[in-house]
Amino acid sequence: MLFFPYDTSEYLLIENFMLSMMHDSAHDVMHVYRVFKIAMHIAERYEKADRDVLAAACLLHDIGRDAQFKDPELDHAIDGAFEAEAFLLSIGWSGKKSSHVKDCISSHRWRNDLVPDSIEAKILFDADKLDVCGAVGIARTLMYLGKENGLLYTLCEEGTVLSGKKRWHGDSFFREYHRKLKDVDNRLFTKEARHIAKKRKKAARDFHKALKNEVFWCNRISMHI
Amino acid sequence: MLFFPYDTSEYLLIENFMLSMMHDSAHDVMHVYRVFKIAMHIAERYEKADRDVLAAACLLHDIGRDAQFKDPELDHAIDGAFEAEAFLLSIGWSGKKSSHVKDCISSHRWRNDLVPDSIEAKILFDADKLDVCGAVGIARTLMYLGKENGLLYTLCEEGTVLSGKKRWHGDSFFREYHRKLKDVDNRLFTKEARHIAKKRKKAARDFHKALKNEVFWCNRISMHI
Repeated sequence: MLFFPYDTSEYLLIENFMLSMMHDSAHDVMHVYRVFKIAMHIAERYEKADRDVLAAACLLHDIGRDAQFKDPELDHAIDGAFEAEAFLLSIGWSGKKSSHVKDCISSHRWRNDLVPDSIEAKILFDADKLDVCGAVGIARTLMYLGKENGLLYTLCEEGTVLSGKKRWHGDSFFREYHRKLKDVDNRLFTKEARHIAKKRKKAARDFHKALKNEVFWCNRISMHI
Repeated sequence: MLFFPYDTSEYLLIENFMLSMMHDSAHDVMHVYRVFKIAMHIAERYEKADRDVLAAACLLHDIGRDAQFKDPELDHAIDGAFEAEAFLLSIGWSGKKSSHVKDCISSHRWRNDLVPDSIEAKILFDADKLDVCGAVGIARTLMYLGKENGLLYTLCEEGTVLSGKKRWHGDSFFREYHRKLKDVDNRLFTKEARHIAKKRKKAARDFHKALKNEVFWCNRISMHI
């Protein structure tokens, strides 16, 4: 229903299932629509990509998030993949297509060991990762940190701001930038996604640089008054 | 204690009181230290500014935040101002200096009607507002939105992204940018603060522009596949 121009009854059915699974976060739902749209854009370069599988995989790729939030031991990609497969079978999809969607979803997360192998799985992976590139990636990371009561940066005992380049610098936005955001583009599968990532990279780099300059400048102001 | 090179026993006493009032948020405590440092930097241009009053006002300016968070009807600036005055009197500060700190703190918030009148109140106001300028202002706004389960942008019923320029566009990062972040520099009192704000402005503008471009591009991708 929400903000979604795609209007065949089958897609509305899948969309409604997704919305019912993600009722707690309009923010996450907007991410799903962006991933869907970016994936459809990339798929224009891959005629053989199965649009039904890709569309369902995009819409349902994060339905395991709520379960993972409640139980952090769970992997939302694996959990959501099985939920998606069961749902698609229940609305009459074939075993083959439902299983294909399951495989796309289970391999979309780079923290687990599953590697996307089909073109549909690669496109979902890339579209999802493009949403952590550029300004939108910076914004989502900061909002997530705020939700989790995280830090912009950490300090060592003497009060110096830590860059986040090393693991011992601790969790912060600066650490997340070096650990994940900075080089998202190196880990993409499709040429079009790498092209979009390259265009977006400057915004993230400029923001990080400006933030670092502001924070380090402030930290250097002498207290000997 | 925490990350703070200032080490006279009186300042440590005030700092410890501040930490005891803000135990829930390391993020907010780091903001307090930045405001303190920026204020001391600005004060170098104002020889007559009372450093004791300014330092205490900076350290204590947000101690009312927890109370406001629990009861949103409260104004953290007013509530914190009275708490600060009572604390300073309790550690032997004069009525005049304690009351001056109270006045600085009560007028540091631009959502209430109190206008900073002393140079110390103006410097606190400016230092606090500089921390919503530039990349650090963008970052703090996004983290706050994440904490409050807010949105990056809103959509109209047909699915178009709204710019946030109008009140009816609803609460979002885009709205906050137009409502507050974009023109912080126009509302500052001291020349040095305006100078720093001007330098920081480009980072915020560039980030907003990049985010808008990414989100609007994504929103324009056709779904007619």
